[in-house]
Amino acid sequence: MNEKKKYIDIDSVVGNLDEVTVKDLRKQAGMSRKDFCNSFEIPYRTLQSWELGEREMSDFSKRLLAYVIKTSELVENYKRDLEKQVEGEQDGEKKE
Amino acid sequence: MNEKKKYIDIDSVVGNLDEVTVKDLRKQAGMSRKDFCNSFEIPYRTLQSWELGEREMSDFSKRLLAYVIKTSELVENYKRDLEKQVEGEQDGEKKE
Repeated sequence: MNEKKKYIDIDSVVGNLDEVTVKDLRKQAGMSRKDFCNSFEIPYRTLQSWELGEREMSDFSKRLLAYVIKTSELVENYKRDLEKQVEGEQDGEKKE
Repeated sequence: MNEKKKYIDIDSVVGNLDEVTVKDLRKQAGMSRKDFCNSFEIPYRTLQSWELGEREMSDFSKRLLAYVIKTSELVENYKRDLEKQVEGEQDGEKKE
């Protein structure tokens, strides 16, 4: 079969991140620092040091983060649809 | 509006990762080491050191990675549908 299927194409989702900071990504997600740290289980001090430029998030982590933020709405909608579907099926079973 | 919407719920997608290694995640994705490094732009030496237990991937990166792997099929299918839709619309325009 098509071996290329196994690749996960991050770039086509996130684009070029050279000029994008962690803070940009957080703002894109509409999150406060606290929300961000809670969601991603990132220590507050670590986020702070990235945003102040004291440390840098690794490039691969930044790409993963950008991908998760860009696709999270899609994933959340899918989960909601799936839950509705399961509820619908359960209703159907009750009627039989 | 509902402020909780802004949280991205990683846990409900990836579950508990305490016992899950980077190698487990790579195998789950059906990727060779080379494919994995290419997809995620992770240096081969870095992956090797994680898999040999010489170093550890940070917990938050592992969670992001697990989320990306778990949701990538959904995202890829969505992209494919979107491309088909765009093609369909272009065909429609041609007919007018």
